[in-house]
Order: sequence, then structure tokens, then C-alpha cells
Amino acid sequence: MEMSGVGPLTAALRMQNVVQSSSRWAQGQQYRPWTLRSLKLQPLSPVPSDIEISRAQTPKPVDQLAQEIGLLQEETEAYGRTKAKVRLSLLDRLREQPDGKYVLVAGITPTPLGEGKSTVVIGLVQALSAHLKLNSFACLRQPSQGPTFGVKGQRGQISTHISMLEISMLINESFNLHLTGDIHAITAANNLVAAAIDARMLHEATQKDKALYSRLVPSVNGVRRFSPIQISRLRRLGISEIDPSALTPQEVSSFVRLDLDPAKVTWQRVVDTNDRFLRKITVGQASTEKGHVRETQFDIAVASEIMAILALADGLGDMKTRLGRMVVGSSRSGQPVTAEDLGVSGALAVLMKDAIKPTLMQTLEGSPVFVHAGPFANIAHGNSSVLADKLALKLVGEDGFVVTEAGFGADIGMEKFFNIKCRASGLRPNVVVLVATVRALKMHGGGPNVSHPSILSNLSLVVKGCSSNLRKQIQIAHLFGVPVVVALNVFKTDTQAEIDLVCQMAKESGASDAVPCHHWARGGRGSVELAQAVKQAGSQPSHFQFLYSQETPIVEKIRMIAQKVYGADDIELSPEAQAKIDYYNQQGYGKLPICMAKTHLSLSHLPEKKGAPTGFTLPIRDIRASIGAGFIYPLVGTMSTMPGLPTRPCFYDIDLDPVTEEITGLF
Amino acid sequence: MEMSGVGPLTAALRMQNVVQSSSRWAQGQQYRPWTLRSLKLQPLSPVPSDIEISRAQTPKPVDQLAQEIGLLQEETEAYGRTKAKVRLSLLDRLREQPDGKYVLVAGITPTPLGEGKSTVVIGLVQALSAHLKLNSFACLRQPSQGPTFGVKGQRGQISTHISMLEISMLINESFNLHLTGDIHAITAANNLVAAAIDARMLHEATQKDKALYSRLVPSVNGVRRFSPIQISRLRRLGISEIDPSALTPQEVSSFVRLDLDPAKVTWQRVVDTNDRFLRKITVGQASTEKGHVRETQFDIAVASEIMAILALADGLGDMKTRLGRMVVGSSRSGQPVTAEDLGVSGALAVLMKDAIKPTLMQTLEGSPVFVHAGPFANIAHGNSSVLADKLALKLVGEDGFVVTEAGFGADIGMEKFFNIKCRASGLRPNVVVLVATVRALKMHGGGPNVSHPSILSNLSLVVKGCSSNLRKQIQIAHLFGVPVVVALNVFKTDTQAEIDLVCQMAKESGASDAVPCHHWARGGRGSVELAQAVKQAGSQPSHFQFLYSQETPIVEKIRMIAQKVYGADDIELSPEAQAKIDYYNQQGYGKLPICMAKTHLSLSHLPEKKGAPTGFTLPIRDIRASIGAGFIYPLVGTMSTMPGLPTRPCFYDIDLDPVTEEITGLF
Repeated sequence: MEMSGVGPLTAALRMQNVVQSSSRWAQGQQYRPWTLRSLKLQPLSPVPSDIEISRAQTPKPVDQLAQEIGLLQEETEAYGRTKAKVRLSLLDRLREQPDGKYVLVAGITPTPLGEGKSTVVIGLVQALSAHLKLNSFACLRQPSQGPTFGVKGQRGQISTHISMLEISMLINESFNLHLTGDIHAITAANNLVAAAIDARMLHEATQKDKALYSRLVPSVNGVRRFSPIQISRLRRLGISEIDPSALTPQEVSSFVRLDLDPAKVTWQRVVDTNDRFLRKITVGQASTEKGHVRETQFDIAVASEIMAILALADGLGDMKTRLGRMVVGSSRSGQPVTAEDLGVSGALAVLMKDAIKPTLMQTLEGSPVFVHAGPFANIAHGNSSVLADKLALKLVGEDGFVVTEAGFGADIGMEKFFNIKCRASGLRPNVVVLVATVRALKMHGGGPNVSHPSILSNLSLVVKGCSSNLRKQIQIAHLFGVPVVVALNVFKTDTQAEIDLVCQMAKESGASDAVPCHHWARGGRGSVELAQAVKQAGSQPSHFQFLYSQETPIVEKIRMIAQKVYGADDIELSPEAQAKIDYYNQQGYGKLPICMAKTHLSLSHLPEKKGAPTGFTLPIRDIRASIGAGFIYPLVGTMSTMPGLPTRPCFYDIDLDPVTEEITGLF
Repeated sequence: MEMSGVGPLTAALRMQNVVQSSSRWAQGQQYRPWTLRSLKLQPLSPVPSDIEISRAQTPKPVDQLAQEIGLLQEETEAYGRTKAKVRLSLLDRLREQPDGKYVLVAGITPTPLGEGKSTVVIGLVQALSAHLKLNSFACLRQPSQGPTFGVKGQRGQISTHISMLEISMLINESFNLHLTGDIHAITAANNLVAAAIDARMLHEATQKDKALYSRLVPSVNGVRRFSPIQISRLRRLGISEIDPSALTPQEVSSFVRLDLDPAKVTWQRVVDTNDRFLRKITVGQASTEKGHVRETQFDIAVASEIMAILALADGLGDMKTRLGRMVVGSSRSGQPVTAEDLGVSGALAVLMKDAIKPTLMQTLEGSPVFVHAGPFANIAHGNSSVLADKLALKLVGEDGFVVTEAGFGADIGMEKFFNIKCRASGLRPNVVVLVATVRALKMHGGGPNVSHPSILSNLSLVVKGCSSNLRKQIQIAHLFGVPVVVALNVFKTDTQAEIDLVCQMAKESGASDAVPCHHWARGGRGSVELAQAVKQAGSQPSHFQFLYSQETPIVEKIRMIAQKVYGADDIELSPEAQAKIDYYNQQGYGKLPICMAKTHLSLSHLPEKKGAPTGFTLPIRDIRASIGAGFIYPLVGTMSTMPGLPTRPCFYDIDLDPVTEEITGLF
């Protein structure tokens, strides 16, 4: 059936695109500065509330922003007026384009309140683009929706380290609502796998091989055929036969029975809500499930392995492969069972086909931002997506800058960025920006574990904090051969003496430079000094190297991280952990990188140990693996994967004016 | 803080919009035929597969479609290339515009396979717009995602009666994927309420009044203040005091304690996945929940009361009011507890603020379609949204046609459309199109409960089916004073004699007209005869009337539906049902309309009773209420609100080509 009747208008439009794209193609091949129209801020004092700041700005239409940064019309898909997904075809068009400079923003060990890394990212990009007029892009993680309605600032404790402030630095309020639906897509995909697991166990338990086989490979109009997904399973089972009628009873049995051990199912359901009552549940209690009850749990959606895959995938094909490879549990005979064994991998790819496109947004000053993926920063690697970084590096071009962010302190987020994300992407960072606050340095110097920003000026605490935690975190970055610029996120309570002292000691500890940032009060203009320091450091040669090679045995990888990064004397493996390592080696997972699940409140495993602790042994309680995402994660202590709601959740203050459609209480 | 620095481009764009909109405004006030560019179909025989048909067409860019039907640029929000949300501000702009004709497509009692109502809707609208050149719009429900990956055709058994075929009649494959995220928004809102319920019960159980009060009304910078949501609760409690320090201990206690009875929580969690193991679960088993375990369940997302509210809401304000009014359970003293009592109503409105905008799509022939809401057709009213219909009626204008659809047979979907949806919207239908198939008529005539379309020609069975079920369903429509056109959905196995017989008998039974439809094989051209019949019937006066007045007592309303619509001798109330009725009357819910939860496979409560059964008594097992949506639903028999996955779910055939991004197996 062929299609006809295209009117002159569309024809004309298409023609225009062709012309446009071919001319743009040529341009796209060499570097060209953007004609980015920046939205001017008029800083006021006292600084207005975040929501006021945000409301006072009118964003550029996203299609205008897209045009300004050199995207072709057919490379974007608008989602409303201020958001657009960017198609991956861009990577082909700009294949020959050299990448821009790659800047990672990490932090010292934070207080429970977080030290504002994401706001430094935004401030830095605004300074680079709106003030130094350099092409530059921010890559941020998508915040989980749950905490938005739970506890203010709680995001810090889970996947995405988003402060209330930086939300206001992005114009679009949907930033912490549905955005473009990526987390919802992950939830749908994750829970389809969970439903498939329990349904399959039930059907295997209640049917004989023959019945299972005739249902799994039904006769359609007299013909029985394996689906491509089933043929992949046959291959894994070493069965080359593709005629359903020619399988031996033994082969039929091994094909139809995943034989999942209910006690060894590792896949959990997820929901993007802080629902503490789902931390431990029993399912299958309806009579229709014939007594196949099972204890399980829900995690917060961003803890799903599918989120980690979205963040590490290199393209649609790679994502699909990783989704099929996910191990959901093991059989009674100890064999891993994958999503593809369940027959669900194709459907997962379909559910995720739009989520893989990064979402383009803008800062208050009109600088471009990609918001994409937001994996848990403890049981996963806590970095935004590889694809957003790659698209941004092509878009900014040779002399441009892409600023991305790693969750938690440098000992966790940065280490995972280097050893896991850069290994997966092949990208090499040029500069590390290490964010510090006087508040946190005082804590590391022996001061109270602050719960609010204002404590009195105290130089000796600052000195102790700088010579311990700050110095150690700088050294960690240098382990990887990357130059460090320290960004002191200045609070109005900080004294000039404290500010000067931190910058001086940071340089003495090996930082290429150290500067105070005033982006909170002054927006991009407040980060110009940082932007210049980053530009300078970016011009130096970077001698990037991994901390360990993939070939290193699992135990050695863990020990190297514990000793060189955390400062531990050694590690101590529980019997469970040792058993898991043996199992993973036997299954051929030994070459995967390590994703430590450790508290972010200390370089050690003990949250109360501030500064730069030494003389401790790091206990490895247990070890798990995300085979689809491609890492092994040792558990140091216990990690909650489902936050809760307090007595008065912030939703009490959240409201919508039905007439103006204005939202209150979200920030 | 004021915003400046808007470049000439945006300024120009804005100027243009102003001019455009003011000129369009004028036009908008009187009827004007669209300049709709239809996409021509070249029907082939044999008819290709649905997916081939769909792929063969290239949709118009949605912004072009929007322009063609008179939408202003600022009234749409694109979601990708082929979908756009339409802003409700349109209703203000076209306030003075007279509505078009309002056509409801209902059906006779269907076989388990469904008789293709939705395809008739699409075919009819294509005939009206592409062939008769009349402005016309289709309004469809959004399909649930769960069954897409479960059992083909299973949709028919749950909320949305979407056949595989009509999906192919809509170009956009995301029609049965995430679409524009409305169902995900409903899931997020529904589950936020659920999390709030359990967390609140826990906090009340573990804290004294004073502690609860100081947390619920905290001192911020020395000031204690009630939030607006809390003030609403005070009002409901009859407390006029708004100074937190001035409440009596008794008032404090009644304010802080919802005192929810765990055994009387009626709110369920939802997920848009066929997950049978969640039909009955136990939550709160983690030690952090201190033993507050509770038995509960998950429903499929479209069964959420929030979906019913989305479908019935008249605007943002109305939706917000309904969300706050939802009753989630009752207190130990028997008082209803609402979403607003939980403090969550504002957050719900924020989560739903985009979902309330209908999604514009197009048919294979380029005719406009609104896809919006898809409430369960048994425990809810199973109709698409009031707002989509209202927007469409303004857009088509005086001489145009809006074709909407009611779930299941006319005894269920049409009755609810009239008594619930039309009552809420104030809209009055002009024509009912009653869809019949020879296949179903033979079943009603005493033939087998067909499981596939082809059984031999049998005129006597057809006669019996026409004189029983078809005649009865026509009479039901006439109860409401609306003219009926019977649309015989022709299958290739139907004989001309059968077709002629059905049309003749339908007219003898009082139908204004009865015509065969060949839209499946010929698209819109195959429905031209139906379009002409509908146009003709639409020109006749409609004497619409409700079956019952709101003032009628609950029992009487139920009895009237049972006797006049179903043909029952009487009803029989269980003691539980009688007790609920007394409770609802006492709570002042007596004036709500009735939403019967009955099987769709028979006019009676017994699925096996085909034709037009008489001489039966309708048993009312229990009665529930959706106070936010605004109806009471008597349960006739048991209804499953969570479908399951079979041994071989259709996801085995669903796949994505990573290179072409082509989806296979979805249809």
C-alpha cells in the first residue's frame, strides 16, 4: 500500500529541511561559535526566593534554543514549550566533529545538606556561555519524583543530588515532575520484568513440560515457530535446532523451564514514590496465585538497574543488549536467568526507545542543559548519561566545554565516573572541579555535624578541614591524572579570611587553582572567575589513567579502591561476599568494574568519621551484581533503597492555582 | 527581579502571535469549514496486515494538523512529531461558538472478542471528514499499557475496548505505549495518596497529639501557621480558629488524628502492568514499619478513581476539587477521610496539571482524533473525557460532528454515558450509532459463543439475534430519546443475505437507519453510507432525557436500571449492600448517579445468558462509592481489577530494530 496525496505545504517543508540540513551538514563539520542569546539576570539584594527568581524569567522557546546551538529541526522532538528530546542521529551527523573539553564537577565529603555541586555546574556553564561567550553545556541527572513530595533536601540521600536551589536555576518546573517521562518508562519496563518473573514461576509450577512447550511455541495456522527471542535462548542452551518438532524431550525441558529459585530472585519492583510500607512485602496471596506467596520489596524507581543501563548505554543497540543481559535471579541449579530468558527484552527496548534520547532544557540565563538519567549514587554509579555527554561534546565543538556532575563526594561519585562511566564511554575528562564549602570544611576540622549553614567564623577548624578531607579528595583526583580546580561555594556567612584561607590551602595541596563562587547571589557572573580557572586548567595536558585494569581480580579491585581512594588499611570480606566472588568468577563476571555501595558522609564506612580517616579496615558485608549495567557492587553497611514520608511531607505546601496554573511550594 | 534582554526574534514571534490570534479570534467566532488535507488510502486486496497499513502512511506533522482545524499556535504543546496536548484555554476563546453534533458509538452485547466499536468510530470520522468534507473529530480512550504486553485483545476485558485493528488506524505507535504520559501521571498521583495513607497511620500510631501537632504545624522562623490545605480541614471539623496556638486540646486532637481504620482503607495502589501477584499482598513487613502490617492490593492503573476523575472533570478547578474530595477510607468512628484530609490534594493537582489536556492525534486518513482518559468500564463509567468532547465540539463548530465512544454494550457503556457523563458535562447527544456484527447476532440467536469470526451462514440464528439483543439495545437508546443508526460491522465471512436481513430487521425494530460498514477493507470510503445515515439522523430533533433524577433514592435508581435497561424483574440487595446504602445516605451521597459493575457479556448478570434475557432478579452483592469521581457503584458479581500474564505473553513477539527503530509485534 503506497502513500500519496502529500500537499504542497509539506512537500515544501520537506524540501526546505533537505536544503537546510545539507547546508548545516557542511557547517556542522567544523567548529563554529554559537549565536546564543543569553537571558540577562538583574541580581537583587536581598536575594529573592528561588521560586521568585525562577518565575521572573521567561525561557526561550526550546526550538529557538535548539537552533542557536546548531541542532537541525529534524533532530529535536519538542515536549511542550521548554523541553525537547534530542535524537541520537546527531552523533552520526557530527561524527567528524572534534569533542569539546570535558569537565567533571565533584565534591569533598558533604554535610547531610549537600554542598551545592549541581548549582556550581549551572553557575559555571552560565559563566562560560553567557559571559566568556564559549559554547558550553551542562549535563544533569533527572531528579526522582518521590522526594519532591517527601522531605526537602532528601534527594541528597538518594539517587540524584538535586538541591531546591538548582531546580530554580532551571526554568521549567516540570524538572522535578514528570519531565519527559523517562523515569515513568523505566518504572513500566522494570515492573514488566517483575510481573513476568512471578507469572512464569507460577506457570512452570502448574504445568508439565509438554503443556508449557505447546503454549510457549504455539501452532499458528498449523505452523510452529520459535520467536527470535526464543532462538537466542536456544543458542545459550547450546541447542542449534530451530525446528520446534525436532527438539528432544530433554531439550524441550531445558528450554521451557527457567526453573527460577524463588529464594534467589534478585529483581525488585519499583515505584517513584516514597512508600516505606513497600520496603518489605508478601505477594501472591490471592487464591488465583495458588499459594505461591513470596517475600519481596519495592525500591524507588531510580534504583532500578534499567536506570543504570540508561545512564551507561552507548546507543539503542547497546541499550537493548544490556536490557536482555540483565540477570533477574538464578535457577535451582545455580544458573543465572536473564530478561531475555523471560522473553521480555524486546518489549523493554520498545518501552525505553524514547527515554534514551536526552532532554534539552535551559538555565535561567538561557544556557543549554541536558537532563538525562539519574541512577542511585550508592548501589549504582550516580552519574548522568553517557549519551547526553557525547551529544553535548559534539554540539559545543572543539573549543567548547561540557560540564557534567558526579554524585556524592569525589571518593564515590568521581571514582565511579572514572572507573565505570569513562570506561564504558571511552571519554576522557580534562578537568575536575572539586566543590567545597566552609561549612563542610569546619565539620571535617572537628566542628559539629552542621544542620544549618551558619556557624561562627573559625579559622582553625577550616585549616584542619582543608588539610584533611580537601587535601585527600584533591589527591584522589590526581590518582587519575586529571588537573583539579577547587570551587569554594560561598555562603553569606563565610568571612573573607576563611575564603582566602581555603583557596590558599587548596593550591598548596596541589590544586591547579582555587576560587570562590558567588553564583547563588549573582548567577553566571558570580562564577566567571571559576570559568576562567577551568578554561586555564583545560588547556593543560591531562594524563588520565584508570585506577585498575579490568583484568585485575575482583578482590584486588575492591582492595585498591579501599586503600588508595578511601585510605583503608585493608578490606575484610564476609563469607557471603567471598562466596559471591567465587560465583561471579565462575560465571565469567570477574572482569566487570566495581561500584562500591558506601556511605557518602565519610571517606570510610563510618559516617561519623570526618576529615581523612586512616587505620581502618573496610568490611564488605555482601556483594551484588548488575550484569546488564555492567558492574559488581560490594555492600559496605546497609543501604536503604526506599525513602519514607515524614509526619508532615512537603506536599502540604504544594498547590496549584487552577486559574493562573501557577505552582506553589515546589521549591 | 524583572526579566530583560529578549531578542528581536522572540519579540517578533510574540508580535506575530498576537496579530494571528486576534485575527483568528474573529474567525473563531463563526463556523468555518476546515481546509483539512486528507491522506489518501489506496485499498489493496487482500487487505494487508494492520502494521503494514500503519507503516505505509506518513502522518502530517501535528502542528500542521492543528493549524488545519483552527487551533492557535499557543493552544498546542507538541509531544514529539505526531502528538500534541491541547490547552483548555481554547474553551474560553470559542465560548460563543455553537457546538457541533454529538454522536455516541455504542454496541450490542459483544462476543468476548468485541465487535469493533472503536474501528467504527475511526471509519465514521474518516468518512465524514475526508469524504463528506464535514468538520469531524473522533474522541477515543487511552489504552492501558498492561494488556499491550499481556494477552492480545485482552483490552476488551478491562478499561479500554481497543482492538488491534484500530490501533493500526491511528498512525502513532506510541498510542499503546506511553503516549503523553497521562496514565503514568495518574499512577504517580494514585500511589502518592497510598503512601500518604500508610505513612500517616504509622505516624499517628507512634506519636502523641502534641508531637503530631508540632510536626504538622511547625514553627518556621518562630512563626506557626496552618497551610491552606490544613485550614480546609479545620473548616470541615467546624473549627474557625486559624491561630495554631489557640486551639483547644480537643480541637488539636481532632485536627491531628485522621484515626483511619486500617480495616476500612478503600484506597489501593496501582500499576499499569498485568501483575497478578499484586492482587493480594501484605505491606509494612520491614522492621522500620514497627509491625504495622496490612493486607491490601494493587489494581491496574486505569482502575484508579483518579482516571475516572480525569474523564469527568470539567476543568482544572473542578478536577482539583474532585481530587481533594476523594474518600480513601473511614475513621474508627465511621467518618469518611479524604485526600484533602491527608494534605495531598494540592500535590495531586500539580501531578495532573498536564494530564488534563487532551492529546491530539490523527487517523490514517489524516482526520483529527482526541485520545484522552480511559476509565475502567465496569467499576467506572468507561467513557473518554468530557473535556476532549467539549474541545472537539467547539473545534468542529455548528455543522460539524464529534464521534465519541462508550465501552462495552449499550446496556453498560451507553447507559453510563447518558446518566453519568452527560449529567456531569451538560452535553446532549444527537445520535447513537449502535454497532452490531453478524457474528455476535448469531451468538445471541443461540449459536456458539464464537471464539473466531468464521461460522457458516445461518439466517435463522441471525433472525433470533436481531429480534432479541439488537432490538433490546435499540429500545434502550430510545428510552433516552435519542435516534439510533445501526452500523453493521461487515466481516468477509458475512453473506449478502445476512447483511440485508440485519439492516431490514434493525429498521423494523425502530432504528432510524441501518447500514453495512466496510471501513476495515476500505477505510473511510467504506463508511460513507454510515456517515450519510448519521448526518441524516443528526438533522432530526433529539428529545434527550435522563433515565432517573438525582433525587431518586439509591435503591430506586438501581432498580430502574435493572428493570428498564437490563430487563430484570427486580433487584435483590445483600445485607452488606443495604448497610452501605444507609451509610451513603447518612453521609449525604444519596444524590450521586449509579455506575453499575456488571458483566458486559450479557444484558443480565449471567454471562452465559445471551439474547435479551427476562425473568431474572439482579443480585447486588455489595456497593462502593467514588466520591471524587461522583458516582456509587453497585457490584453485581465479582470484578477483577488486575489482569494477569499468560504462559506466553505477547511480549515474546514485540521487538525493536535498533537501526531502523522499527517496532514489530505490537499489533
